[in-house]
Amino acid sequence: MQNKLVLENVKGTRDTHPEEMLIKEEIINKINKIFKSYGFVPLATPALEKYELLASKSAGGSDIDKETYNFEISGRKLALKYDQTVPLSRYIGMNSHLTLPFKRYQYDRSWRYGDIGPGRYREFYQFDIDIVGSSSMIAEAEILSAIVDVMKELGIKGFKIRVSNRKLLDEIVLKTGIKKINNKDIFRAIDKLEKIGEECVINELEKIGLTKTISKEILKYINLRGKPEKVLVELEKNFKETKGYAELKELADYAEHFGIIKYLDYDISIARGLDYYTGPVFETNVEELNLGSICSGGRYDNMIGMFSGKAIPATGISLGIDRIIDTMKRLNLIKERKTATQIMVCTVKNELLKESIKISKELRENGFNVEVDLMNKSLKNQIKYADKQCIQKIIIIGEKELAENKITIRNLETSKEKTVLKQKLLEELRI
Amino acid sequence: MQNKLVLENVKGTRDTHPEEMLIKEEIINKINKIFKSYGFVPLATPALEKYELLASKSAGGSDIDKETYNFEISGRKLALKYDQTVPLSRYIGMNSHLTLPFKRYQYDRSWRYGDIGPGRYREFYQFDIDIVGSSSMIAEAEILSAIVDVMKELGIKGFKIRVSNRKLLDEIVLKTGIKKINNKDIFRAIDKLEKIGEECVINELEKIGLTKTISKEILKYINLRGKPEKVLVELEKNFKETKGYAELKELADYAEHFGIIKYLDYDISIARGLDYYTGPVFETNVEELNLGSICSGGRYDNMIGMFSGKAIPATGISLGIDRIIDTMKRLNLIKERKTATQIMVCTVKNELLKESIKISKELRENGFNVEVDLMNKSLKNQIKYADKQCIQKIIIIGEKELAENKITIRNLETSKEKTVLKQKLLEELRI
Repeated sequence: MQNKLVLENVKGTRDTHPEEMLIKEEIINKINKIFKSYGFVPLATPALEKYELLASKSAGGSDIDKETYNFEISGRKLALKYDQTVPLSRYIGMNSHLTLPFKRYQYDRSWRYGDIGPGRYREFYQFDIDIVGSSSMIAEAEILSAIVDVMKELGIKGFKIRVSNRKLLDEIVLKTGIKKINNKDIFRAIDKLEKIGEECVINELEKIGLTKTISKEILKYINLRGKPEKVLVELEKNFKETKGYAELKELADYAEHFGIIKYLDYDISIARGLDYYTGPVFETNVEELNLGSICSGGRYDNMIGMFSGKAIPATGISLGIDRIIDTMKRLNLIKERKTATQIMVCTVKNELLKESIKISKELRENGFNVEVDLMNKSLKNQIKYADKQCIQKIIIIGEKELAENKITIRNLETSKEKTVLKQKLLEELRI
Repeated sequence: MQNKLVLENVKGTRDTHPEEMLIKEEIINKINKIFKSYGFVPLATPALEKYELLASKSAGGSDIDKETYNFEISGRKLALKYDQTVPLSRYIGMNSHLTLPFKRYQYDRSWRYGDIGPGRYREFYQFDIDIVGSSSMIAEAEILSAIVDVMKELGIKGFKIRVSNRKLLDEIVLKTGIKKINNKDIFRAIDKLEKIGEECVINELEKIGLTKTISKEILKYINLRGKPEKVLVELEKNFKETKGYAELKELADYAEHFGIIKYLDYDISIARGLDYYTGPVFETNVEELNLGSICSGGRYDNMIGMFSGKAIPATGISLGIDRIIDTMKRLNLIKERKTATQIMVCTVKNELLKESIKISKELRENGFNVEVDLMNKSLKNQIKYADKQCIQKIIIIGEKELAENKITIRNLETSKEKTVLKQKLLEELRI
């Protein structure tokens, strides 16, 4: 005999309920539209990739063994992708005929087999945008301009895109004369600044071999934050001849042209944990909320080349859709709905179902979302169902009214009711 | 040293290129809209499920071991879902508060570890619609009505929805007096009728223990096909008192009300391979093409109850999106595009980029999809790029024209060019 099956989600995964999906669909459509307006095209890559690709030195390295869902099947080791960037790099490598710049958007799942917690899942959705082929800072400016458009379209105010630069961070470390320490270890410590505070970062840096004096000198620059113009003036004093400074300067100029400079904060403390970044890096925060970044990314000029054998620059950003929805909820920008149905056509008795189907069809053809009873319910229970689903209006079809060519409309929100001639129905509903 | 990585997709999976994704996105949006107009709501369930759920007797049974991607991780056996129906049934079981009927649509991937071939992948996409909670044939009629709307919206003509009924098939077998043979084995043989022909089916039936005479008697009914009215007249002679006949009769009545009867063919040979069907089953074919069914499904009144311990009827259909796209291509209903970009703003020299960014911004605000050069290309190469991408119009910004507050528009399809005042630009583009 079969044991009773416990119905549950796999740990770290979840169902997205209709209420949330209705919102998500709307948001994704808006974001799609904006990226299309900049010439981005959609792409889909499979969930499964060869493990050796995801674990290659150019991608996640062998560290990913414990952090991915991976398994062997018929002698082949496969894994579920942990991001959209490595598959994109593979795609570019496999399709050398692509016209550059290749600008693509992709809304998809990723999987990471890591710790779970509030808002932290093992299966999660991201909306990724990347520009492949351009080394100019206009690519970054265009991506950030599109992000600003998305925020505006979604009604999110009070956000700042915080920009730093990996080259500049390298140059800051170089200036202190440190050698033999892997800059990436330093950046990983710096990346925690906001989370753990200055003192803890200095302790972490001490552990990897930096003296307090040097750490403090580094942190002097790291702590620079403010309007691009202001931060650039400070950086000019010591880094004028560096590539990192030049990129931040060029990006500010383009951002000015795109009309988005006021949404940018130059914040040198942004380092981003991932190893593969090579230039500007971004995080986006809504200032009044303490939610972490909702859009993050940066330039990665070396990764694609390591796969394809041909150096191809690239930059991109990832929108954390669940966090964006969370942000919008906290800012009261979302009205939750159980359904998109606007009208329920009810019948006084079941024999009138034919008539209700006919009317529902006509209403659909005129752009309304309409339901009819599918369960042979009494009128009372039909109305109860409509009420539970928060359907705003019902139409009641009664025998007597029908004989007079009439129909009743009731607004369940206001409880107002009106009986009108059938041919006036559409007109009435549009009021 | 790392070996050179071979860049390739996991066997049986593929990338969906932008050209195809642009089409897919458009189609999915249209289908979403139609199902919303009938009161369906979206749902998402994870890719991973507990293996014991997918392999439970109520779902796929232990046969699925070889047909799914499954693996153990930290002592738990997981699998990638092979359809959307089993996860839906789990969802219903876990959410007993749901208002019935629960009508949901879901566009998602599934994975089957089986044979691959042309158009046959191990990772594939389906658009599923189900109505949970109604045992009335109006549920079937509504689903088929929505399918008809989808076909109309996509411009697909000459399709027929072929309808049979599992109860009727049981009754046909019962009539022959056969016992001790699993009906499901018989149906699996019958399901191949179209593919392998009558003689081969009779051979297959002989193998499982049916005499030729009995097989031929079964096939007499199985071969009934035609307008619902005509087939019902034939069935009435021998099956008038059966549930299967009653359901087909009721469905035809509702289909009449929904105005979709002319799109239905009653075709008793449709058996559907899956074990879990209990009532009407459907397949949809475009008659002039020999492509197999593009929308298939049926009623499964027992499955959800086996999970949730509470009997809940359900019916649904699955749209094979890739086959639908294939159908539309063959019917010349699709114009492939490389991009959704309508206009490229080009500059005679790089110093004018500021101006081109400004104009592109204005055009975007007015609803156009616009690109600017991101790669510091010469005008010639900018035009070459636009041409390669099949962008219809370009705008050329030159120093001389700009000084006169003018701008040049060129149609790359017709090669016609026009220089207009900047303030006339929008007006000109809208022509």
